[in-house]
Amino acid sequence: MAKYIRGGKIITASDTFIGEVLVNGSQIAAVGSDLRGIVPAGAEEIDATGLYVMPGGIDVHTHLDLPFMGTSSSDDFETGTIAAACGGTTSIIDFAIQEKGRTVTEALNKWHEKAAGKAVTDYGFHVAITDFNDKIASELPGVVRQGVTSFKCFMAYKGSLMIDDGQLFKLLSEARKLGALISLHCENGEIIDVLTKKFLGEGKTSPLYHELAHPAIGEGEATHRSIALSRMAGHPVYVVHMSCEESLKHVRESTLKNNHKVFAETCPQYLVLDRSVYEKPGFEGAKWVMSPPIRTRQDQEALWSGIRNGFIQVVATDHCPFNFSGQKDMGKDCFAKIPNGAPGIEDRLNILHTYGVLEGKISLNQFVEVTATNPARIFGMYPKKGTIAPGSDADIVLFDPTKESMISSKNSHHRCDYSAFEGFRLKGKPAGVLIRGAWALKDGDVKIKRGFGQFLKRDAIK
Amino acid sequence: MAKYIRGGKIITASDTFIGEVLVNGSQIAAVGSDLRGIVPAGAEEIDATGLYVMPGGIDVHTHLDLPFMGTSSSDDFETGTIAAACGGTTSIIDFAIQEKGRTVTEALNKWHEKAAGKAVTDYGFHVAITDFNDKIASELPGVVRQGVTSFKCFMAYKGSLMIDDGQLFKLLSEARKLGALISLHCENGEIIDVLTKKFLGEGKTSPLYHELAHPAIGEGEATHRSIALSRMAGHPVYVVHMSCEESLKHVRESTLKNNHKVFAETCPQYLVLDRSVYEKPGFEGAKWVMSPPIRTRQDQEALWSGIRNGFIQVVATDHCPFNFSGQKDMGKDCFAKIPNGAPGIEDRLNILHTYGVLEGKISLNQFVEVTATNPARIFGMYPKKGTIAPGSDADIVLFDPTKESMISSKNSHHRCDYSAFEGFRLKGKPAGVLIRGAWALKDGDVKIKRGFGQFLKRDAIK
Amino acid sequence: MAKYIRGGKIITASDTFIGEVLVNGSQIAAVGSDLRGIVPAGAEEIDATGLYVMPGGIDVHTHLDLPFMGTSSSDDFETGTIAAACGGTTSIIDFAIQEKGRTVTEALNKWHEKAAGKAVTDYGFHVAITDFNDKIASELPGVVRQGVTSFKCFMAYKGSLMIDDGQLFKLLSEARKLGALISLHCENGEIIDVLTKKFLGEGKTSPLYHELAHPAIGEGEATHRSIALSRMAGHPVYVVHMSCEESLKHVRESTLKNNHKVFAETCPQYLVLDRSVYEKPGFEGAKWVMSPPIRTRQDQEALWSGIRNGFIQVVATDHCPFNFSGQKDMGKDCFAKIPNGAPGIEDRLNILHTYGVLEGKISLNQFVEVTATNPARIFGMYPKKGTIAPGSDADIVLFDPTKESMISSKNSHHRCDYSAFEGFRLKGKPAGVLIRGAWALKDGDVKIKRGFGQFLKRDAIK
Amino acid sequence: MAKYIRGGKIITASDTFIGEVLVNGSQIAAVGSDLRGIVPAGAEEIDATGLYVMPGGIDVHTHLDLPFMGTSSSDDFETGTIAAACGGTTSIIDFAIQEKGRTVTEALNKWHEKAAGKAVTDYGFHVAITDFNDKIASELPGVVRQGVTSFKCFMAYKGSLMIDDGQLFKLLSEARKLGALISLHCENGEIIDVLTKKFLGEGKTSPLYHELAHPAIGEGEATHRSIALSRMAGHPVYVVHMSCEESLKHVRESTLKNNHKVFAETCPQYLVLDRSVYEKPGFEGAKWVMSPPIRTRQDQEALWSGIRNGFIQVVATDHCPFNFSGQKDMGKDCFAKIPNGAPGIEDRLNILHTYGVLEGKISLNQFVEVTATNPARIFGMYPKKGTIAPGSDADIVLFDPTKESMISSKNSHHRCDYSAFEGFRLKGKPAGVLIRGAWALKDGDVKIKRGFGQFLKRDAIK
Repeated sequence: MAKYIRGGKIITASDTFIGEVLVNGSQIAAVGSDLRGIVPAGAEEIDATGLYVMPGGIDVHTHLDLPFMGTSSSDDFETGTIAAACGGTTSIIDFAIQEKGRTVTEALNKWHEKAAGKAVTDYGFHVAITDFNDKIASELPGVVRQGVTSFKCFMAYKGSLMIDDGQLFKLLSEARKLGALISLHCENGEIIDVLTKKFLGEGKTSPLYHELAHPAIGEGEATHRSIALSRMAGHPVYVVHMSCEESLKHVRESTLKNNHKVFAETCPQYLVLDRSVYEKPGFEGAKWVMSPPIRTRQDQEALWSGIRNGFIQVVATDHCPFNFSGQKDMGKDCFAKIPNGAPGIEDRLNILHTYGVLEGKISLNQFVEVTATNPARIFGMYPKKGTIAPGSDADIVLFDPTKESMISSKNSHHRCDYSAFEGFRLKGKPAGVLIRGAWALKDGDVKIKRGFGQFLKRDAIK
Repeated sequence: MAKYIRGGKIITASDTFIGEVLVNGSQIAAVGSDLRGIVPAGAEEIDATGLYVMPGGIDVHTHLDLPFMGTSSSDDFETGTIAAACGGTTSIIDFAIQEKGRTVTEALNKWHEKAAGKAVTDYGFHVAITDFNDKIASELPGVVRQGVTSFKCFMAYKGSLMIDDGQLFKLLSEARKLGALISLHCENGEIIDVLTKKFLGEGKTSPLYHELAHPAIGEGEATHRSIALSRMAGHPVYVVHMSCEESLKHVRESTLKNNHKVFAETCPQYLVLDRSVYEKPGFEGAKWVMSPPIRTRQDQEALWSGIRNGFIQVVATDHCPFNFSGQKDMGKDCFAKIPNGAPGIEDRLNILHTYGVLEGKISLNQFVEVTATNPARIFGMYPKKGTIAPGSDADIVLFDPTKESMISSKNSHHRCDYSAFEGFRLKGKPAGVLIRGAWALKDGDVKIKRGFGQFLKRDAIK
Repeated sequence: MAKYIRGGKIITASDTFIGEVLVNGSQIAAVGSDLRGIVPAGAEEIDATGLYVMPGGIDVHTHLDLPFMGTSSSDDFETGTIAAACGGTTSIIDFAIQEKGRTVTEALNKWHEKAAGKAVTDYGFHVAITDFNDKIASELPGVVRQGVTSFKCFMAYKGSLMIDDGQLFKLLSEARKLGALISLHCENGEIIDVLTKKFLGEGKTSPLYHELAHPAIGEGEATHRSIALSRMAGHPVYVVHMSCEESLKHVRESTLKNNHKVFAETCPQYLVLDRSVYEKPGFEGAKWVMSPPIRTRQDQEALWSGIRNGFIQVVATDHCPFNFSGQKDMGKDCFAKIPNGAPGIEDRLNILHTYGVLEGKISLNQFVEVTATNPARIFGMYPKKGTIAPGSDADIVLFDPTKESMISSKNSHHRCDYSAFEGFRLKGKPAGVLIRGAWALKDGDVKIKRGFGQFLKRDAIK
Repeated sequence: MAKYIRGGKIITASDTFIGEVLVNGSQIAAVGSDLRGIVPAGAEEIDATGLYVMPGGIDVHTHLDLPFMGTSSSDDFETGTIAAACGGTTSIIDFAIQEKGRTVTEALNKWHEKAAGKAVTDYGFHVAITDFNDKIASELPGVVRQGVTSFKCFMAYKGSLMIDDGQLFKLLSEARKLGALISLHCENGEIIDVLTKKFLGEGKTSPLYHELAHPAIGEGEATHRSIALSRMAGHPVYVVHMSCEESLKHVRESTLKNNHKVFAETCPQYLVLDRSVYEKPGFEGAKWVMSPPIRTRQDQEALWSGIRNGFIQVVATDHCPFNFSGQKDMGKDCFAKIPNGAPGIEDRLNILHTYGVLEGKISLNQFVEVTATNPARIFGMYPKKGTIAPGSDADIVLFDPTKESMISSKNSHHRCDYSAFEGFRLKGKPAGVLIRGAWALKDGDVKIKRGFGQFLKRDAIK
C-alpha cells in the first residue's frame, strides 16, 4: 500500500527542505512539492507537519544472541531489532563470529539461523575472523559473493578472539583483492592481559579495575598499529567503537598527513558518559563494563569534534546487553568475568539528536549522515539504504524534534534489566518508523511482525 | 512551461541516483522514479540518459565591468554571465567596490545599474569596504536589509583598497551584530609594496617579478592574521582565492586545534596551473598576473587535499578579465601596471570535473558541493539555490561526463582575447543549462535573453 | 688580586662537576682538580663547598632610567645594576630608545650618559628603532661598529613606538647585511588600540582591562607575523618577553616544520604568576600592568616546556620598575595611563632555581644556559661572557642551593616601593658574586663601587 | 706520566675556547689559560695548535664477536676496539645477548670472557633479553649492581630474538624499579616475517628484497608502540638505530605533546647513505643488508633535523661487520640468510664532522654532545666519561679539522673485507687519541696494548 507523507521537513546528509514523500510498495517513489497527482488511490496519507522525514538509521555494530564469556547477550534478533526499530533504526549489521578451529561458513550459517524468521529490521553480517589461515582464506571469496563484504578482527581478547599482526596483515591483503572491508577492535590485548593479571593478583577485583586495565594509550597504540598495517597493505581499515582522543589523533594524522583514508566509528556511550561510572558504589560500575571502557570528558569532546570534522564517519551502538542480575554478576568477585557489553540499540538517534544536534555539536545533516548515509555507503548498501531518494528502500523515520522524554529501562524495548543511559533526558524521538514501506512503529506502537526483516546482501567495496 | 527530465543521474552534495526531475515554472516540483502522473500537459520532455543532473553552479567571486588600475575588466554583466551560463554557472556574486571617501550605498547603486537589464544569470553583490568609519558603519544595517549580506576587505593593495587591522577588527564586530559575513583578500600589502618598489628600483620589470613580489609566506601571514582577528572578534571570516599551503595550514589549524571555523575558497587556476607560467618568454606571463599569483605544484596538491578534507568549501573563479592586447600591455615596462586578473568564469565546472573528479581527487558529490551547495549555504541562498530539491529554483545543469573538448579563447564566450587555460583538454561539459526553469544553454546554443537574471536578495548568516 | 675558589660544584651549560677555579685579575685562569701549584701568592682562597660555581647571569632585557608614559622607570643604572648583581646578574643589556624624528646616535649617546659612571655590572645596549628611514639606515653600520649589534622594534604601542610591517621588513634586510639581530616586541598594536578605546568608552578603566585589551591571540598573531617577515627576509628575529602558548607554537613550528630558526625569550613573571593578579581588589592589579600582561597557568606550563625543549633560549626580566605610589597611580582612573612595567632584576636566578630546577621543570645546566650562556652566545659576548672557562671574564656566581628566603620589597635592592613577587618563597640564592674578578656581593654585602661596570662592545652575529 | 696539551681549541657539549689541558695519570687535572706552574716535571708536552681537543667518543652500540645467523661478526674485541680508537672512540658498550632458555648471567659471563684481555678501549655491556620470565627478573637486580644498567629488547627477529608486548611491558616495570634503561630495536617483526616469506615465495631473493621486507612504516609502528608501552609503564625507552622520519615523528610528538621523554639514537649509515645502495648490480647490496635498512634522502634530512633539534641524542654505529666474501655470501640465493650488519666503528666521528658540522647541519658542540657527552649521561658514565673537565677520565681526541682523506677498507682498521662508506671523502680526522691518559693513537700509529681497556661499571639511571 502506498503512503503519502506530507508537510514534513526532509533531511538528508546534505539537504534540508519542506517537501512530500511518496512511498509506493517498499520503495520511495518521489519527493516533491505537490505529489498529489501521482498518489495511488487508497494511499495512506500521513501528516508529517512539524516532523523530520529522515532515512532510517543503520546500526552497523550489534551483537544479538551472542555467546560470550560463558553466557549469551540477552537480546535475540527479535527483541533486539524491535528495540532498534523503536529507536529509528531500520537496518543492522551483526557479527557472525568464527570459533577458533572452525570455518567462517559455519559461523555465518549459525547467524543466519539466529536471525531468520526473527528480525524485524533488515540485517546483514560481518564475519569476525579469529583464526586466519589458508583454509579460511579460501572460504572468503564465497563469503563476499554472499554479500558479506566486511570482516572483523580483534586486536584484544588475548587467548580467545585476538589475532596477531602477521595474520591481520595477510588478511588485509586478501581483503584488498576481494573488495572487503576490514573492521577492527583496536586495543592492545597484551597490555590488557598483563594489567588484568596484575590487578587480580593484587586483589583488585572491582569493575573500576576493568577500566584501569584498558588504558586509552593502549587503544591509541592498537589504532596506530592498525593504520600502519593498513598503509603497508594499501587497503583501508574501519576502526570500530573508537573511544578516545589517543585513537582519533592517529586517524586524523593518517588522513591529513599521510593521505591515507581510515574509517572510524564511535558509539553514544563514549559521547555522553564519562569514566565516573566506574566509581559508582558497589558493583554498579559493572553495567558499563565493556571494551573499550568509557573514557574522560576530554575524550568526549574530542570525539564530537571528530564527527564534526569528518574523521569519524559512523555512530553505531555496539549493543551487547547482559542483565545486571544473573549475567553481569558472574563477575562479582572478579572484574574479568563480567560479560563485556551494554544495551543501547534503541537510544542512538535520540541521544545524538539531544546531545549532538541540539547542543550545536553537529548539524542535522551530519546527524543523518553518521547514523544512516555513511553506514550505507561504507558497507555497500547505498543508495538502496541510507537516504531519502526515489528508488531507495522506504526506510523512513518520522522524527519529532520536540517530544520530550527520559530514558529508562522501564520504557525501553530491549530485553535487559537496566539501561546504560538511565535517567538521560531526551528532546526528540521517532513518532513513526517505516521499514521498506511498512509501519514498524506508529503512534508509539510496534506494528511490525517478527521475521519481517530481510538479509542484506551487500556490495563489495571499491 | 514545465520540463520533465528523465533518465539522468541526479547528483547532489550527498546523493547519487538515477531519477526524474519535474520542473514547473521556475522551480523544481518533484524528484522521482516515475513522475509521469504529475507532468502537466505540454511539458517539454528531456532525455537526460547518460547525463548528470546537477544544481546550477554558483560563482561567488566575479569582477564584471570593474574599473581597476586605469582600465575596466573586459566582460560586462551581459558577456560575463553568458560565459558563466555556458559553463554551467547559473548565479554569481559580484563585488560592488566602495570608492575611498564615498559611501557603500553609492557603490551598490552603481553596481545595480551595471547588472540590471544585462545579466542573464541571477546575481548578488558583496560590498567591498575600502574605507571604514562610523558613517559607513551606519549604512550597513540598510545594506544587509537589501540582501547584501557579505562585505569584503583587502589586506593588500596598499594605498588603494587596503584597510588596516584596526578597521578590519571593528568591521568584524559590526558584521557580527548584523549577521554579515566578511570575506578577505589575504596578502600582506606592506611586503608587496616594499618588494615591488625594490624590484622596480633594480630594473626588474617583467611579469615574473609580480610573482616574486607576492610571496606565499606573505599570503600565509595575512591569512593567519585574519583568522586571529576573527577569533578575537568571535565572528567567522571567509578567505577568498586561497592559493597556497602556507595559507591552508592556518585554516586547518584553526578548525582542528582552536575549534574556530574559517571558510576558504580557491579557484581553478590555483588547482591546475603552476608558477612556470611566469617563466614563459617575453611578456606572456602577464596573462596570469593576478593577486595572489599562481603557485607551485606542491601548493596545488595541498589545495586539492584541502577541498577533499573539507577545509576549502568553495571553488570560485575570481573572473576578472583584461585583454592581453590593449590592457595587459599597459604594464609592458612595469609589472606593477599590469591590470591584475584573468578570465575563467566559463571553465570552473569543466576543469573541476576533468582534473578533480576524473583524477580521483574529489568525489562527484564534492564537485557539486564546492561549486553549488556550499556557496549557496555560506552566502545565504540555500535552499532556494544550490541543490536539486522540490521547492528549489530550477537552476539545473545537464552535464555530459563523456564529452571531450579543449579550452581555447576561440570557443570561449567571455569577452577577452585569451584564455588562462588555453589548450587544456577537458572531459565533461554542460550539455544543457536551465536557469529558473528556462533554457539558458541547449544543444550548444545560448538561448537566454539579456536581462533575464534577477538580483539575489540573500539571507543574513546565523 | 687572584682568587682561588675551592670545593664548589661547577655548573656550565653542559657540565656539572666538583672542581676548583682560579681567577687571575679579571679572568678565569684555570679550572682544575688541584690548582694549588699555580695559585699566585696572596690569592684569596674561597671555600665554595656546598655551593654552585656558575657563570654570572646576563639579563638582556632591562629598562633603567627610562622615560616612559610621562614618568621615568624608578631605577637608574646604579640602583638597577646593584639589584642585578645581588641577584647574580653580572651583565645587562639595556635599550637605548630612538625618539621619533631623531637619530639613533642621539639615543645611544643619551644612554651612554645614563650608564657611564653609575653601572656596577657590565652593560651593553640594544637600540630601539621607532622610526625607520634611509637616514636611520645610514647610521646603522656605525652603530654596529660600536658594538651595538642588536636593534629592537615594537609591533605594539600604536602612535608612539610602533613601526609598520614595511619598515620592519626593510630593517630586517639591513640587519642581515650588518650582522645585527632584530629583537621584537610582538603584540598587535592595532587591536590593543581598538580594545583600549572600546573599554575606556564603556567606562571600564581598572587594571583588569589592561589585560583584556592585550589578548594572547594578538600576541600570537604578531609573533607569527614577525616570523613570516623574518623568513621572507632570510634573517632571524629574537622575540622578547614571550608570554603565552599562542606565541610559542609559532616558534616551534618555524623551527621544526620550516627549518627557520627563531630566538625566543621569556621572563620569570610569565613563568610563575598568573592572570588572577588582575583580579585583586582595587587598584592593586596595577603592579602587574605590563605589556604583554601576565597570562594563564596553561601558558606557564607551555613556557616551561618551551625552555625545556630548547624553543625558548633566554630568560630575561624586562625589569622596568615604577613605584606603586606616585607612578602607577597616574592611571588610577584609566588603565591606559598606568606606566607599563614591573621590577624583577634581582629575582631572576632565584626564581628559576626554586620554581624551575627544584620542581624538575629544567635541569641545572639549562638553568645556566638560559640565564647566562645563551644570552652571551646570541648577543655576541661569548666566550668572554656566559661560561666558566679559562680566558673568560671572571663573572662568577657562588650560588647556595640550600639557602631559604622569601622575596619582599623590603629586602630587595631595587628602587621601587613594591615587588612583583612579594611573598614568594625561595630556596637557593647567591652567596657571593664576582664581576670581572672583583667581589660584587660577599657575605650578603654589596662590595662593588658605583661605575665599576664597563660598556660591552658586542660582536656582530654570523 | 703527565701530559700537557697546549694551544688547542677545547670543545665540549656547550663550550668552545682556546685553552690548555693538563692530564695527570689517567685523569684530566686541569683546564686553563696557562697551566705551566702545575705541570709535573717530565710531563709530555703536546702542541695542539690548530686541533680540537674533544672528549673521547663513546659508541654505545657495537656487536663484537657476535654469533649471529650462523656465523660471527668478523671483529673481536681487539680488532674492533682498535678500529674504534683509531676513529676517536675511547669507550664502547656492546651487547651481551641472552640465549633463549638460558640466563642473562651466562650471557654476561660469556661477554666478559670475550672482552677481557682483548679490548683496548674501555667497554661496558647492555644485556639483551630475548626471553623474559620470573627467573630472569630475579637475576636483574644483581645485573644492575654489576654496573650493567641497560637492557635491550628486540621487537623484530620473530622466532629468535623478538619478545612480545606483554613481556616488554613487564620488563619496563622491572626496569623502573631498578633504575635500568630499556633500549629497543623497533621494527614490527610480524610484518617482516610475512613479507620475507612472501618475497621468497615469489622467488625474489636479492638484497633489494631485504629492504622491501623492512618498510619504514613498520619501523615507525614499532617505535610508536614502544613509546606507548613506555608511557603506560611510566619509564623511558631508548630507541636504537632510528633510520627514518616515520619513527622520529613519534619521538617528537611524545616529547612535545605528551611531555614524555624518549631517547633516540641514529647511526652514520642512516645519515649519509640512501636506499639506492640496494639497487647496485648483482649481490653488492648485501654489504648494506642490516636491520633496519638504509632509507631515503628525505629520511636523512629528517634525522639530521632530529639531531639538530635535540630529539635524537646519540649517534652510535651498530658496528656489526661480516666479510662480503665468506659471510655475506651465505645469503647469495636468499636475502634472509645474509648476516645482518655492516662495519662502521672507525668512521663515526669523521663522517659526522665532514657531513654534519662542515655542512652546517649541526654545531661543533652538538658533534661532541651526540658522540660523547650524551652517551655518557644517558648510560650512567658521566662525568667520568663524556667531557673535558677536571676529574674526568683523560679520554681525549686531538681532532685535526683540516686533514683530508678518503674512507676505504684498505686504510680501515676493522677486520672486514669492505667498508660501508668506501670512497667517502673526509675533512677532519683524529690526529691523536688518549685513553685514560695513555696514547692510543699518535702520529697515525696505534700505540695501545691489547687488553688495556677496562670494564665500565655504570650507574643506574635516575
